[in-house]
Amino acid sequence: MKRVLGIDPGLLHTGWAIIDVNGSEIKYVASGVILPPTKINLADRLAFIFNNVSELCDTFHPDECSIEVIFVNKNGKTTLLLGHARAAAITAVAVQNIPVFEYEPNKVKKALTSMGHADKEQIYKMLSILLPNAHPKTADESDAIAIALTHANTSKLMM
Amino acid sequence: MKRVLGIDPGLLHTGWAIIDVNGSEIKYVASGVILPPTKINLADRLAFIFNNVSELCDTFHPDECSIEVIFVNKNGKTTLLLGHARAAAITAVAVQNIPVFEYEPNKVKKALTSMGHADKEQIYKMLSILLPNAHPKTADESDAIAIALTHANTSKLMM
Repeated sequence: MKRVLGIDPGLLHTGWAIIDVNGSEIKYVASGVILPPTKINLADRLAFIFNNVSELCDTFHPDECSIEVIFVNKNGKTTLLLGHARAAAITAVAVQNIPVFEYEPNKVKKALTSMGHADKEQIYKMLSILLPNAHPKTADESDAIAIALTHANTSKLMM
Repeated sequence: MKRVLGIDPGLLHTGWAIIDVNGSEIKYVASGVILPPTKINLADRLAFIFNNVSELCDTFHPDECSIEVIFVNKNGKTTLLLGHARAAAITAVAVQNIPVFEYEPNKVKKALTSMGHADKEQIYKMLSILLPNAHPKTADESDAIAIALTHANTSKLMM
Protein backbone atom coordinates (compact mmCIF):
# COMPACT_ATOMS: atom_id res chain seq x y z
CA MET A 1 0.00 0.00 0.00
CA LYS A 2 1.19 3.48 -0.86
CA ARG A 3 -0.24 6.68 0.58
CA VAL A 4 -0.19 9.66 -1.78
CA LEU A 5 -0.47 13.35 -0.87
CA GLY A 6 -1.82 15.47 -3.73
CA ILE A 7 -1.29 19.23 -3.54
CA ASP A 8 -2.94 22.00 -5.57
CA PRO A 9 -0.92 25.02 -4.45
CA GLY A 10 -1.95 28.66 -4.27
CA LEU A 11 -1.12 31.76 -2.21
CA LEU A 12 -4.80 32.13 -1.28
CA HIS A 13 -5.99 28.49 -1.18
CA THR A 14 -3.84 25.35 -1.21
CA GLY A 15 -5.91 22.22 -1.81
CA TRP A 16 -4.67 18.90 -0.44
CA ALA A 17 -5.81 15.29 -0.61
CA ILE A 18 -4.67 11.96 0.78
CA ILE A 19 -5.44 8.69 -1.00
CA ASP A 20 -4.30 5.13 -0.36
CA VAL A 21 -3.38 2.96 -3.32
CA ASN A 22 -3.25 -0.80 -2.98
CA GLY A 23 -3.00 -2.70 -6.24
CA SER A 24 -6.03 -1.68 -8.24
CA GLU A 25 -7.86 -0.42 -5.16
CA ILE A 26 -7.86 3.30 -4.38
CA LYS A 27 -9.23 4.62 -1.12
CA TYR A 28 -10.04 8.22 -0.32
CA VAL A 29 -8.61 9.14 3.10
CA ALA A 30 -8.98 12.89 3.56
CA SER A 31 -8.84 16.23 1.81
CA GLY A 32 -9.08 19.91 2.61
CA VAL A 33 -7.88 23.40 1.90
CA ILE A 34 -5.12 25.42 3.56
CA LEU A 35 -6.33 29.00 3.94
CA PRO A 36 -3.72 31.50 5.14
CA PRO A 37 -5.18 34.60 6.87
CA THR A 38 -5.98 37.14 4.16
CA LYS A 39 -4.04 40.10 5.50
CA ILE A 40 -0.55 38.69 5.89
CA ASN A 41 2.53 39.38 3.79
CA LEU A 42 4.19 37.01 1.33
CA ALA A 43 6.80 35.64 3.77
CA ASP A 44 4.23 34.84 6.48
CA ARG A 45 1.94 33.33 3.86
CA LEU A 46 4.73 30.98 2.71
CA ALA A 47 5.50 30.05 6.32
CA PHE A 48 1.78 29.31 6.88
CA ILE A 49 1.64 27.00 3.85
CA PHE A 50 4.91 25.31 4.87
CA ASN A 51 3.74 24.73 8.45
CA ASN A 52 0.36 23.37 7.36
CA VAL A 53 1.83 20.98 4.78
CA SER A 54 4.38 19.84 7.41
CA GLU A 55 1.48 19.08 9.77
CA LEU A 56 -0.29 17.08 7.04
CA CYS A 57 2.87 14.99 6.60
CA ASP A 58 3.16 14.48 10.38
CA THR A 59 -0.51 13.45 10.60
CA PHE A 60 -0.92 11.25 7.54
CA HIS A 61 2.65 10.05 6.80
CA PRO A 62 2.32 10.00 2.99
CA ASP A 63 4.86 7.87 1.09
CA GLU A 64 4.87 10.06 -2.00
CA CYS A 65 3.63 13.48 -3.04
CA SER A 66 2.15 14.64 -6.33
CA ILE A 67 1.92 18.25 -7.56
CA GLU A 68 1.17 19.98 -10.86
CA VAL A 69 3.83 21.62 -13.01
CA ILE A 70 3.09 25.30 -13.61
CA PHE A 71 4.01 27.45 -16.59
CA VAL A 72 4.46 31.19 -17.00
CA ASN A 73 1.40 32.49 -18.82
CA LYS A 74 0.38 35.99 -19.82
CA ASN A 75 0.11 37.09 -16.21
CA GLY A 76 3.75 36.47 -15.27
CA LYS A 77 3.51 38.20 -11.90
CA THR A 78 0.67 35.95 -10.73
CA THR A 79 2.48 32.82 -11.92
CA LEU A 80 5.61 33.90 -10.08
CA LEU A 81 3.65 34.29 -6.83
CA LEU A 82 1.95 30.94 -7.41
CA GLY A 83 5.45 29.50 -7.89
CA HIS A 84 6.40 30.79 -4.44
CA ALA A 85 3.37 29.06 -2.83
CA ARG A 86 4.16 25.89 -4.79
CA ALA A 87 7.79 25.99 -3.60
CA ALA A 88 6.75 26.40 0.06
CA ALA A 89 4.53 23.31 -0.23
CA ILE A 90 7.17 21.26 -2.09
CA THR A 91 9.85 22.27 0.43
CA ALA A 92 7.70 21.13 3.38
CA VAL A 93 7.35 17.69 1.80
CA ALA A 94 10.96 17.39 0.59
CA VAL A 95 12.55 18.28 3.96
CA GLN A 96 10.75 15.18 5.32
CA ASN A 97 12.42 13.10 2.57
CA ILE A 98 9.10 12.32 0.93
CA PRO A 99 9.61 12.04 -2.88
CA VAL A 100 7.79 14.69 -4.90
CA PHE A 101 6.44 13.89 -8.38
CA GLU A 102 5.48 16.63 -10.82
CA TYR A 103 2.83 16.29 -13.54
CA GLU A 104 1.92 18.64 -16.35
CA PRO A 105 -1.76 19.73 -16.37
CA ASN A 106 -2.58 17.82 -19.57
CA LYS A 107 -1.09 14.66 -18.00
CA VAL A 108 -3.58 15.08 -15.16
CA LYS A 109 -6.46 15.40 -17.60
CA LYS A 110 -5.25 12.47 -19.67
CA ALA A 111 -4.62 10.20 -16.68
CA LEU A 112 -8.16 10.72 -15.43
CA THR A 113 -10.27 11.03 -18.57
CA SER A 114 -8.00 9.72 -21.37
CA MET A 115 -8.37 13.19 -22.88
CA GLY A 116 -5.54 15.75 -22.73
CA HIS A 117 -8.04 18.57 -23.11
CA ALA A 118 -10.85 17.45 -20.81
CA ASP A 119 -12.63 20.26 -19.01
CA LYS A 120 -12.93 20.55 -15.23
CA GLU A 121 -16.49 19.13 -15.22
CA GLN A 122 -15.35 15.94 -16.98
CA ILE A 123 -12.51 15.55 -14.47
CA TYR A 124 -14.78 16.09 -11.46
CA LYS A 125 -17.28 13.58 -12.85
CA MET A 126 -14.51 11.01 -13.16
CA LEU A 127 -13.37 11.73 -9.59
CA SER A 128 -16.86 11.01 -8.27
CA ILE A 129 -16.85 7.66 -10.10
CA LEU A 130 -13.34 6.65 -8.98
CA LEU A 131 -13.72 7.87 -5.39
CA PRO A 132 -17.44 7.93 -4.48
CA ASN A 133 -16.56 8.50 -0.80
CA ALA A 134 -14.79 11.76 -1.53
CA HIS A 135 -17.06 14.76 -1.31
CA PRO A 136 -14.79 17.70 -2.12
CA LYS A 137 -16.35 21.01 -1.19
CA THR A 138 -14.12 23.23 -3.31
CA ALA A 139 -12.34 23.15 -6.68
CA ASP A 140 -8.97 23.31 -4.86
CA GLU A 141 -9.81 20.10 -3.00
CA SER A 142 -11.03 18.39 -6.19
CA ASP A 143 -7.87 19.44 -8.03
CA ALA A 144 -5.72 18.05 -5.22
CA ILE A 145 -7.57 14.71 -5.43
CA ALA A 146 -7.08 14.73 -9.22
CA ILE A 147 -3.32 15.26 -8.95
CA ALA A 148 -3.04 12.49 -6.32
CA LEU A 149 -5.00 10.11 -8.56
CA THR A 150 -2.82 11.07 -11.53
CA HIS A 151 0.25 9.93 -9.63
CA ALA A 152 -1.50 6.69 -8.65
CA ASN A 153 -2.36 5.99 -12.30
CA THR A 154 0.79 7.25 -14.00
CA SER A 155 3.43 5.85 -11.68
CA LYS A 156 1.91 2.38 -11.82
CA LEU A 157 1.20 2.39 -8.11
CA MET A 158 -1.99 0.70 -9.29
CA MET A 159 -1.24 -2.72 -10.68
CA MET B 1 22.22 46.58 17.52
CA LYS B 2 20.40 44.75 14.74
CA ARG B 3 21.74 41.77 12.87
CA VAL B 4 20.68 41.53 9.24
CA LEU B 5 20.73 38.46 6.99
CA GLY B 6 20.94 39.33 3.29
CA ILE B 7 20.03 36.64 0.78
CA ASP B 8 20.71 36.50 -2.97
CA PRO B 9 18.71 33.41 -3.95
CA GLY B 10 19.26 31.00 -6.82
CA LEU B 11 18.66 27.34 -7.60
CA LEU B 12 22.38 26.84 -8.31
CA HIS B 13 24.00 29.33 -5.89
CA THR B 14 22.34 31.17 -3.00
CA GLY B 15 24.54 33.94 -1.63
CA TRP B 16 24.13 35.00 2.00
CA ALA B 17 25.64 37.64 4.25
CA ILE B 18 25.36 38.68 7.88
CA ILE B 19 26.02 42.26 8.99
CA ASP B 20 25.57 44.00 12.33
CA VAL B 21 24.15 47.50 12.36
CA ASN B 22 24.59 49.72 15.40
CA GLY B 23 23.69 53.35 14.88
CA SER B 24 25.91 54.56 12.04
CA GLU B 25 28.33 51.66 12.50
CA ILE B 26 28.08 48.64 10.23
CA LYS B 27 30.11 45.51 10.88
CA TYR B 28 30.65 42.63 8.49
CA VAL B 29 30.11 39.33 10.31
CA ALA B 30 30.12 36.55 7.72
CA SER B 31 29.08 35.62 4.21
CA GLY B 32 29.07 32.60 1.93
CA VAL B 33 27.28 30.67 -0.76
CA ILE B 34 24.86 27.75 -0.47
CA LEU B 35 25.68 25.26 -3.21
CA PRO B 36 23.20 22.38 -3.60
CA PRO B 37 24.66 19.25 -5.23
CA THR B 38 24.37 19.66 -9.00
CA LYS B 39 22.51 16.47 -9.81
CA ILE B 40 19.47 16.68 -7.57
CA ASN B 41 15.88 17.39 -8.53
CA LEU B 42 13.92 20.56 -7.84
CA ALA B 43 12.27 19.34 -4.61
CA ASP B 44 15.57 18.19 -3.06
CA ARG B 45 17.22 21.41 -4.17
CA LEU B 46 14.55 23.47 -2.40
CA ALA B 47 14.93 21.32 0.74
CA PHE B 48 18.71 21.86 0.60
CA ILE B 49 18.30 25.64 0.40
CA PHE B 50 15.68 25.60 3.19
CA ASN B 51 17.86 23.49 5.48
CA ASN B 52 20.95 25.62 4.90
CA VAL B 53 19.13 28.92 5.48
CA SER B 54 17.58 27.41 8.63
CA GLU B 55 21.09 26.55 9.84
CA LEU B 56 22.26 30.10 9.17
CA CYS B 57 19.40 31.42 11.30
CA ASP B 58 20.24 28.93 14.07
CA THR B 59 23.91 29.91 13.96
CA PHE B 60 23.74 33.69 13.60
CA HIS B 61 20.27 34.57 15.01
CA PRO B 62 19.55 37.46 12.61
CA ASP B 63 16.89 39.96 13.72
CA GLU B 64 15.75 40.79 10.20
CA CYS B 65 16.20 39.45 6.68
CA SER B 66 16.57 41.31 3.40
CA ILE B 67 16.00 39.85 -0.08
CA GLU B 68 15.57 41.23 -3.60
CA VAL B 69 12.23 41.39 -5.40
CA ILE B 70 12.31 39.50 -8.70
CA PHE B 71 10.35 40.16 -11.87
CA VAL B 72 9.35 37.91 -14.75
CA ASN B 73 11.62 38.78 -17.66
CA LYS B 74 11.85 37.31 -21.15
CA ASN B 75 12.96 33.95 -19.81
CA GLY B 76 9.84 33.24 -17.78
CA LYS B 77 10.78 29.63 -17.04
CA THR B 78 14.09 30.60 -15.44
CA THR B 79 12.44 33.35 -13.38
CA LEU B 80 9.82 30.88 -12.19
CA LEU B 81 12.53 28.45 -11.00
CA LEU B 82 14.41 31.32 -9.36
CA GLY B 83 11.13 32.19 -7.62
CA HIS B 84 11.02 28.66 -6.20
CA ALA B 85 14.56 29.01 -4.75
CA ARG B 86 13.66 32.45 -3.41
CA ALA B 87 10.52 31.05 -1.75
CA ALA B 88 12.47 28.20 -0.08
CA ALA B 89 14.88 30.75 1.41
CA ILE B 90 12.12 33.14 2.51
CA THR B 91 10.13 30.28 4.05
CA ALA B 92 13.14 29.12 6.12
CA VAL B 93 13.47 32.62 7.59
CA ALA B 94 9.73 33.24 8.06
CA VAL B 95 9.04 29.98 9.92
CA GLN B 96 11.51 31.25 12.55
CA ASN B 97 9.42 34.44 12.84
CA ILE B 98 12.23 36.61 11.49
CA PRO B 99 10.73 39.53 9.51
CA VAL B 100 11.57 39.49 5.79
CA PHE B 101 11.99 42.78 3.89
CA GLU B 102 11.89 42.88 0.09
CA TYR B 103 13.71 45.44 -2.06
CA GLU B 104 13.51 46.08 -5.78
CA PRO B 105 16.88 45.83 -7.61
CA ASN B 106 17.02 49.55 -8.38
CA LYS B 107 16.43 50.32 -4.68
CA VAL B 108 19.53 48.24 -3.92
CA LYS B 109 21.55 50.20 -6.46
CA LYS B 110 20.22 53.52 -5.24
CA ALA B 111 20.72 52.73 -1.55
CA LEU B 112 24.38 51.93 -2.13
CA THR B 113 25.47 54.30 -4.88
CA SER B 114 22.70 56.94 -5.01
CA MET B 115 22.18 55.79 -8.60
CA GLY B 116 19.22 53.64 -9.62
CA HIS B 117 21.13 52.35 -12.61
CA ALA B 118 24.58 51.77 -11.15
CA ASP B 119 26.45 48.81 -12.62
CA LYS B 120 27.75 45.86 -10.60
CA GLU B 121 31.30 47.24 -10.51
CA GLN B 122 30.14 50.49 -8.95
CA ILE B 123 28.18 48.56 -6.32
CA TYR B 124 31.10 46.26 -5.49
CA LYS B 125 33.42 49.27 -5.18
CA MET B 126 31.01 50.85 -2.70
CA LEU B 127 30.83 47.58 -0.71
CA SER B 128 34.61 47.51 -0.35
CA ILE B 129 34.51 51.08 1.01
CA LEU B 130 31.61 50.48 3.41
CA LEU B 131 32.80 47.07 4.61
CA PRO B 132 36.58 46.82 4.10
CA ASN B 133 36.71 43.63 6.20
CA ALA B 134 34.39 41.77 3.83
CA HIS B 135 36.24 39.90 1.13
CA PRO B 136 33.48 38.28 -0.90
CA LYS B 137 34.80 35.59 -3.22
CA THR B 138 31.80 35.43 -5.55
CA ALA B 139 29.21 37.74 -7.07
CA ASP B 140 26.48 35.88 -5.15
CA GLU B 141 28.20 36.73 -1.88
CA SER B 142 28.69 40.39 -2.91
CA ASP B 143 25.05 40.64 -3.95
CA ALA B 144 23.95 39.22 -0.59
CA ILE B 145 26.08 41.82 1.23
CA ALA B 146 24.57 44.53 -0.98
CA ILE B 147 20.99 43.51 -0.17
CA ALA B 148 21.80 43.36 3.56
CA LEU B 149 23.34 46.85 3.40
CA THR B 150 20.33 48.12 1.48
CA HIS B 151 18.07 47.09 4.32
CA ALA B 152 20.41 48.74 6.84
CA ASN B 153 20.32 52.01 4.88
CA THR B 154 16.71 52.02 3.78
CA SER B 155 14.98 50.90 6.95
CA LYS B 156 16.83 53.50 9.03
CA LEU B 157 18.51 50.83 11.11
CA MET B 158 21.45 53.22 10.77
CA MET B 159 20.76 56.41 12.62
